[in-house]
Order: sequence, then C-alpha cells, then structure tokens
Amino acid sequence: MSPEHTWKLTIRYDGARYKGWQRLGADAGGDTVQGKVEGVISSLCGTDTLVTGSGRTDAGVHALAQTAHFRCERVLTADGILGHANRYLPDDIAVIDAEPADDRFHARYRVVEKHYLYRIDTDPWPEPFERKYSWHIPEELNWAAMRRAADMLAGEHDFRSFTSMKSKKKSSVRTIRTVDIIEPKEDSIALIRLAADGFLHNMARIIVGTLVEVGKGVRRPDSLPALLEAGSRAEAGARAPAKGLFLEAALY
Amino acid sequence: MSPEHTWKLTIRYDGARYKGWQRLGADAGGDTVQGKVEGVISSLCGTDTLVTGSGRTDAGVHALAQTAHFRCERVLTADGILGHANRYLPDDIAVIDAEPADDRFHARYRVVEKHYLYRIDTDPWPEPFERKYSWHIPEELNWAAMRRAADMLAGEHDFRSFTSMKSKKKSSVRTIRTVDIIEPKEDSIALIRLAADGFLHNMARIIVGTLVEVGKGVRRPDSLPALLEAGSRAEAGARAPAKGLFLEAALY
Repeated sequence: MSPEHTWKLTIRYDGARYKGWQRLGADAGGDTVQGKVEGVISSLCGTDTLVTGSGRTDAGVHALAQTAHFRCERVLTADGILGHANRYLPDDIAVIDAEPADDRFHARYRVVEKHYLYRIDTDPWPEPFERKYSWHIPEELNWAAMRRAADMLAGEHDFRSFTSMKSKKKSSVRTIRTVDIIEPKEDSIALIRLAADGFLHNMARIIVGTLVEVGKGVRRPDSLPALLEAGSRAEAGARAPAKGLFLEAALY
Repeated sequence: MSPEHTWKLTIRYDGARYKGWQRLGADAGGDTVQGKVEGVISSLCGTDTLVTGSGRTDAGVHALAQTAHFRCERVLTADGILGHANRYLPDDIAVIDAEPADDRFHARYRVVEKHYLYRIDTDPWPEPFERKYSWHIPEELNWAAMRRAADMLAGEHDFRSFTSMKSKKKSSVRTIRTVDIIEPKEDSIALIRLAADGFLHNMARIIVGTLVEVGKGVRRPDSLPALLEAGSRAEAGARAPAKGLFLEAALY
C-alpha cells in the first residue's frame, strides 16, 4: 500500500445556498460545502476521500477561510489541486490555498484559535448588495454599551448559556480572546469580531444576538456576568441570523 | 383634475436576476427593475404610473444610484414613499432617496453627466463573493498601458466604434470627462471609473473590453485614435461582461 500524503486546504465560500459545511449523509453531498469539496478531491485522488473541516458552519454561514485536510495516496501538487478544484467547484466555493501538511495534521483536532466576523447593516433600508451578507438593524444601537458587555465575555468562561448544544457531558468552557465591536463607517456596516480557542454550536450567533439586545437597551451590559453564571440558553439573547456570519480563520 | 406632483427617486439595485432596467412591455413588469418599481409606485399613486429612469441598464448590470422620476396626483411624502417602496420591493432593489422635484424635471432628458464603475477581479481564482459583481481576469494586465489608452478616450469624440447602437441618424458624439484606472489593492479588485455627458448603448462595456485588450497586450494603447476614427464597431474590443458594471450616479 502506498503511503498517504496529507494536504491542508484553505476554502472560501458564500454559504447562502448551502445547508452548511457538514455533509449530511453518504449520498447527500449536493447541498453542503463539504460534499462539494469532497466531490472534486475524490476525483483527484481516484477514490472516495474524506475532507475534514476545522468545524461545522451552519446553513447560510459564509467562510472567508475555512481550513480542511484530506489524505490521499496519489502524488499531487498544490497547483494541480488548486487548478482542478477551482475548475470543477461551483462558483460560490473556491480553494484559495493548498499546502502539504504533516501526517499528524488534523483540521479539527489541531485548531488552537478560530476567528469569526459578524456584519450588521445599519442603513435605514436594507442595502441590496448586503442582503445575503449582513443582519439589517435600522434601530440605533448603543455601541459603548455593547462594548462594555463584550468586555465581560472575554476570558475563560462556561458558555453553556450561549449554545444550542444539548449534551451536558461535553465541556462548554471556552476562552474568548477578543470581542471587538467596530462601529459603522461610511458604508454603514458595523462589525463584531470574535476570537476564541473554540466555539460551541451557535455560540457566535447567540453572542451577537445578545450583544445586539444590549445595544437596543433591552438588556443591561452589566447583566452579562449573571447570564454566564446562569448556564441556561433561555437566559441569553436570540440567535443572530446566519447570513451575517463569516468564519475568518482557523489557526494551528 | 388635480395638479400632478413630480418626485425624483434614487434607486439602488443588484441587477443579477433582472433583464435590465427597462420594462419590456405593458405586462412584462416581473423581471425588470423598472417594472418592479412601477408596481410599488402605482399602488401608492392609486393608478398605473410611469417611472422614468435616467437611462437603461442592460440585463445583469447593477446600480448604486439610478435616478428616476414619476408624476402623481396624490399628495405623498418622502417618508411615505421610502417606507412603502422598501417594504414591498424585492430585497435586491431599494429606493434610497425620494425628493419632490420641479414639474419640468425629467430623469432622462435633464441628465448632464453619468458615472459608471467597472470592477475587475484579478485574483488567480474567481473570488466567490465577487462572482456576480466583477469580471474575473487572472492574467496580468499592463495598467500603465491601459491608462495611456484611457487618456486618449477622454474628451469629445464620435464613439460609433464603441456602441452596439445601429441607428445612423442619432448622434454618436459624446464627451468623456474622466476615465480612471485604479489598480487592485489588497482586495485584488481593480476599478475603471467612467464619467461622460452620456453613454451610447453598450458604450461603457465596450470601452472596458477594449481597455482590457490593451492591458493584455493584444492591442496597442496608441491604436485608440485610429479606432475612434474608424467609426466601426468591428474594430473595437469585445464587450465586457454586464455583471462587473455599476451605474454610480446620474447628475442634473
């Protein structure tokens, strides 16, 4: 048996028409990003090939840079992978980088930090070109209050209040390294940047939804510590829409 | 009969799924931007109402700011128009401004200058988020040569070589005030900005297509004067794709 070669891919996608990253079953590759990427990589490797991402992204969530890996017996080149993948992938998915990786590299288990970006359209009317890439919030938001609340989320906490995850066996402790609130400039787009050692299911969207409730004044910034303490999803804010969320980077 | 009131609208649209600005017939409003806007304005005015744009945009061409006007017997307010229009228009069209205008205002006849923006994606692989909003050209372009060619187009010329217009009765003399070539920055997007007192049918796209041929080295920058002189569409470059073109402004 030939030795396997491991490749690390960086993948960018517009998630609007996909049911998320994760393939939903053996034959259900058609409407997930993983399914599409596995299709082109499998044809390169000459055999059904698993492409493992740094984590799932929900239906409608985008990626500026999702990281994934695959293992393959055939000898490939970075140019060969990029050329084949970008020729046969649909135009809303691109492989923007391919590099050989250590045999022990694993896109999910080896990730040490992930970055998410959330975009809010603050125009009075929804901006046509932003309709699939932002959450439209025409009401005035109190950015200073949102920033105070965000600061209380930084650090190591049990984020059980901020996840749709049901399992009580898995740890819900994560460390948020950065929560930056960037006020809208000329283009009326506000940004929320989140960096953490990992994100629980829906955690980024529930954090954004909760911060927006602070910004609207329906929740006080200093209520955040008690909310973390409560450990109950029902206490946190509504989940922000998927379409405003972008996976920006997975670091190793 | 009540007096008519004239309103000036500024309209932004993602042209990707439309057959252009211009309504194609009395009943064919469904897939043109004008048809959609006339639908909501007619319901405001309580009668079939013509909405006249500053000019056509082709199928797939976008607008950051198309100007249009309509006349209506009912007394309306700007907030009323914006609220109703943006509530009932599809999410890829927005009315971003409404203001009362002089009775003699006419969006097409009174325009004195129009601005177009063309976007070129110079990434090695097509950027997923740019696929409907730019022309992907991975080959290296000679920006200095394009700029030299562009300079020769500025001023008053007969642009018959640069139009799909068949009529020989109408004047094809126009004055180009600006042709700016803006090289790609970090986002890999190059811009071509065009300002003129008017554009002939397909003129912006044929100018861009011709400049790109200069950038690729298949046409010399100093061939432009002879090309203008020829007055023949066959001599100019291929028409650039609609999806990269944005109507930026109509000035009055």
